[in-house]
Amino acid sequence: MDPRIREHAEIVVDHSLDVEAGDEVVVAAPAVADDLVVAFYELLADAGAYPVAATSPLEGRTSPRTARAFLRNRESFDTPGHHRALFEAADAFLIVRAFENAAEVGDVPPETMTAASQANRPIQEERLSKRWCLTQFPAAGNAQLAGMSTEAYENFVWDAVVRDWDAQREHQAGMVEILDAADEVRIVSGDETDVRMSLAGNVTLNDYGEKNLPGGEVFTAPVPDSVEGAVLFDLPLYHNGREVEDAYLEFDGGEVVSHSASKNEDVLTAILDTDDGARRLGELGIGMNRGIDRFTYNMLFDEKMGDTVHMAVGSAYAETVGEGNERNESAMHVDMIVDMADESSIEVDGEVVQRNGTFRFEDGFEG
Amino acid sequence: MDPRIREHAEIVVDHSLDVEAGDEVVVAAPAVADDLVVAFYELLADAGAYPVAATSPLEGRTSPRTARAFLRNRESFDTPGHHRALFEAADAFLIVRAFENAAEVGDVPPETMTAASQANRPIQEERLSKRWCLTQFPAAGNAQLAGMSTEAYENFVWDAVVRDWDAQREHQAGMVEILDAADEVRIVSGDETDVRMSLAGNVTLNDYGEKNLPGGEVFTAPVPDSVEGAVLFDLPLYHNGREVEDAYLEFDGGEVVSHSASKNEDVLTAILDTDDGARRLGELGIGMNRGIDRFTYNMLFDEKMGDTVHMAVGSAYAETVGEGNERNESAMHVDMIVDMADESSIEVDGEVVQRNGTFRFEDGFEG
Repeated sequence: MDPRIREHAEIVVDHSLDVEAGDEVVVAAPAVADDLVVAFYELLADAGAYPVAATSPLEGRTSPRTARAFLRNRESFDTPGHHRALFEAADAFLIVRAFENAAEVGDVPPETMTAASQANRPIQEERLSKRWCLTQFPAAGNAQLAGMSTEAYENFVWDAVVRDWDAQREHQAGMVEILDAADEVRIVSGDETDVRMSLAGNVTLNDYGEKNLPGGEVFTAPVPDSVEGAVLFDLPLYHNGREVEDAYLEFDGGEVVSHSASKNEDVLTAILDTDDGARRLGELGIGMNRGIDRFTYNMLFDEKMGDTVHMAVGSAYAETVGEGNERNESAMHVDMIVDMADESSIEVDGEVVQRNGTFRFEDGFEG
Repeated sequence: MDPRIREHAEIVVDHSLDVEAGDEVVVAAPAVADDLVVAFYELLADAGAYPVAATSPLEGRTSPRTARAFLRNRESFDTPGHHRALFEAADAFLIVRAFENAAEVGDVPPETMTAASQANRPIQEERLSKRWCLTQFPAAGNAQLAGMSTEAYENFVWDAVVRDWDAQREHQAGMVEILDAADEVRIVSGDETDVRMSLAGNVTLNDYGEKNLPGGEVFTAPVPDSVEGAVLFDLPLYHNGREVEDAYLEFDGGEVVSHSASKNEDVLTAILDTDDGARRLGELGIGMNRGIDRFTYNMLFDEKMGDTVHMAVGSAYAETVGEGNERNESAMHVDMIVDMADESSIEVDGEVVQRNGTFRFEDGFEG
């Protein structure tokens, strides 16, 4: 076994999930990621924790082939009580992404995927209230999607995952401080993107490889009704096996009032039509992981890239919403990315804090 | 996909589990059986039922590679509450056996396997109280264990599974009638096997492809303290990746007072040492499926062969124990087989009902 797999599992157990004796852990991982699960189980046994491997077809991505079989034969869904009971009783949760075929659920109708997500929402909320970690195993399907050989992709994944997360935390702390104190943020990129939103009272978190592995972003929640302007998400979105290009959203009073895409617009439409919350932003995130140096059609990595900003339509993470502030709620949480490398700036309360990808606290910043 | 896979799944859904709308189903299946799970999920979706795929390392056989990683790094185990909660909330359960490598858990110490079974017992009991079905997918590892090509093994499995279960039920009904009315049964084979036991008040069940698929046996529970004599199980036992040959048990007052095996006796010892109930019989079964014509080192098939009798040490199925009778309880249930083709007889209350494999109600019976 590649020694980096055990290093990867050690980071999950010791750093990301902080596993304790007696922990009851749920693992959702496709079979192609078995090597990582083997290493993870060895460490859980040592730690005195109990794993159960479980996947539900309502969450297409961890068992895509069997999930597709279920989803294509059904249009409406309830929340299965037995899956919910499993999560209610669990302490921690690991989800491993790894594709044999990244397009496997691409021929499930988007409305069906949306209906499945809605039914799965109470389970998703239960999970988010526990310790959890989402990580990646470098499977051939993901390598293919990224246009890379499997070996090159393995290097890419483990370079991003097996690193000094304390140093990364410190690097990001400067931006957390800025956003945490911010009232209004304005993001400008090229001719198409100019959007303002209030962060007043909300909390900015430092993601250094806990809930997401790799980590490498700082993120917070916009005040739902405060978003005004337009955004062209010029990096592609790969959602449920289909690629959306040039997603464009216009906001008025926080709501998406108009949208378009140059490819697979119906996927974007289905996302926005999920529920009221799916037409509002639930997250603003700033990518700060300079170890992730290329776009790989994988949000877990792409949103962490330096020189990017991402926004998610749908649910806000509860811990980013300040006391007394409104939390955007939705069955959906879909991130989309803006490339900030050129003709771009982030302004906080009227002051530029990033220009063309370079932060105020980095060398080469041009205010 | 081989059309027999969909026929197999249809029998599971319509006949074995009798799935209803709203059923919450747990599926434990290794990835190598994904084709069958795909067909099963299609039908569950049509039926309005909800599957969750779940495996626990305490049950080595459905996820052997990851289970081994956990089990080899631990010696004592508790019952994981989250796995139990899943089964408490579920309505029905499908377990699919399929080996990539039948020896995968063969280097886990037998005592560890036993400790894991004990911790898993409350979950196993919960399952047995629901609708459940254990079936087989014809994986290459099982074919290899049987000494067969994968194609020949596929034919073997689907010939045994895809059949007229109503006709099988009728064929077996004669033997159910005999055993259900029996007080004492005596089983004689060769020079080594001569054992008597009481069935008084207990219930004989007709297995026609419901809880076991393939089915093809009639089975009941001996009165625990009534077993007297000795049995040489002359067909091999394949248990947790290791083969036990010539298991020999001597009973006194229902208890195993002496045991031996010509190969891997330590596996047999670990089974018997699980708990008090593991030293007593929990089942007597008569194989009656003439469609299973060869021994394949797979108890699900072997115990159903015509010309065989099997006995299990360990827990008795609750529904085979008559009201007011004692039920043998154990974390273990391990079947072992006696070949009845030659120099053998089954006597019920002093009357021979089978000689050399031929039943009283079949052509060629020599009383």
